[in-house]
Amino acid sequence: MVIVPHITLNSDEPGIRGLMRFRPETARPLNELAEVLLRAPNSLTPGERELIAAYVSGLNECKFCCSCHSAYAAAQLPGGMELVQEVRADAAGAPISAKMKALLTIAAAVQQGGQKVSAEDVAAARAEGATDVEIHDTVLIAAAFCMFNRYVDGLATIAPDDPAAYSSRVDQMLAIGYAGAIAGYEQAPS
Amino acid sequence: MVIVPHITLNSDEPGIRGLMRFRPETARPLNELAEVLLRAPNSLTPGERELIAAYVSGLNECKFCCSCHSAYAAAQLPGGMELVQEVRADAAGAPISAKMKALLTIAAAVQQGGQKVSAEDVAAARAEGATDVEIHDTVLIAAAFCMFNRYVDGLATIAPDDPAAYSSRVDQMLAIGYAGAIAGYEQAPS
Repeated sequence: MVIVPHITLNSDEPGIRGLMRFRPETARPLNELAEVLLRAPNSLTPGERELIAAYVSGLNECKFCCSCHSAYAAAQLPGGMELVQEVRADAAGAPISAKMKALLTIAAAVQQGGQKVSAEDVAAARAEGATDVEIHDTVLIAAAFCMFNRYVDGLATIAPDDPAAYSSRVDQMLAIGYAGAIAGYEQAPS
Repeated sequence: MVIVPHITLNSDEPGIRGLMRFRPETARPLNELAEVLLRAPNSLTPGERELIAAYVSGLNECKFCCSCHSAYAAAQLPGGMELVQEVRADAAGAPISAKMKALLTIAAAVQQGGQKVSAEDVAAARAEGATDVEIHDTVLIAAAFCMFNRYVDGLATIAPDDPAAYSSRVDQMLAIGYAGAIAGYEQAPS
C-alpha cells in the first residue's frame, strides 16, 4: 500500500516539515510555541521537556513526532535513547526522578483529556518538588503534542521508517532550534 | 464544591485568560496561532472557522472554550447562536453547506485522533468543493482546539456559568482579534 498525504503538498518533506512548507503562515506560531515550550530557559531541562513530548507522541501513536522528539530527547539526556525507550515502555519503572515520573503521569492524563488531570496527580507532582510553572508547562507540552500529533497524522503525512531520517536532524535542531527553522519554511520549496 | 485551578494564578481571570496572564511567554504564540487560523484572510469565513472551533470544543466538553467560540461564531454567522447550537447538537442535520458538513466530519475525526481521518472523509470534502488549504486548516483548527481544550481543563481553570461572561467579550475580540490581545497579557496583572 502506497501512503500519500491527504492533501497535495509542495515538497516531499516528511511529517510536519511538509506541512510547514505548505503553510508557512501557521508554521511560524507553531515553531515559536515549540521553541518556548521545549527550548527556552526553564527549570526543566530541554531533554526533560523533549522526553514529555516524545512520551505523549508515543501515547498518541504518532510515529513521526515520537521518532523526532525521541531523537531530540536522547541527544540531550545523559541516558540517551536507551533511557527514552525505557520511559516510553514503562515510565513508572524507568530510572528518572520521582518528579519527572509525576509530571509524566500528568502528561498521560492530559493525553486522555483535560478533565482527566486530578488534583491528586497535581499534588503528587508538587510533593516531589514540581513548581507551578513546571506543572503548567507539562500540561501545555502534553496538550500541544495532542495538537501536533493530530496535525501530522490527520493529514496522513509520511513518517520514514529509517531511524537515520530522524537522528540526522538532531544537529540542526540543536544548532538553530525550532525558531531558527522558521525562515527556511518561508522560502520557496527547493 | 469550590473549584479552584490546579496552580496558583496571578489573576482571577477565567479559562485560558488566566493562563495567558500567568505565562505570557506561551500566550504570544498561542494567540498568534489563533489569529492565523481563525481570523486571517481565508476562503473559509471567520464565522465558519469559529464554528469548527466551537464544535470541536463541544466534543471535548470544554465549557470555557466552547462557550467563548460559540459566542464568537454566533456573532459572525447570519444564523447566530441558534445556528451554532443546531450544529453542535446535530451537524449533519443543521442548515449549513454540504462543504461545511464535510469539514465538520473531518474535524470530528481529528478530535478522536489523527489516524481517524479517512481518505473517504477527505474525498467527500473535496467533492463538495473544499480546497487543500481548507482541508489543511480544518485539520489544524480541530487539532489546535484539542490542545486549547486540554490546556484549559488540564489546569482546572474556572468556566463561568453566566452566558454574559462570554458574550460580553465578543466586541473586544472583533475589534482587536487574538493578536491584539497579546500586549495586554504581557502587562502586570491589574
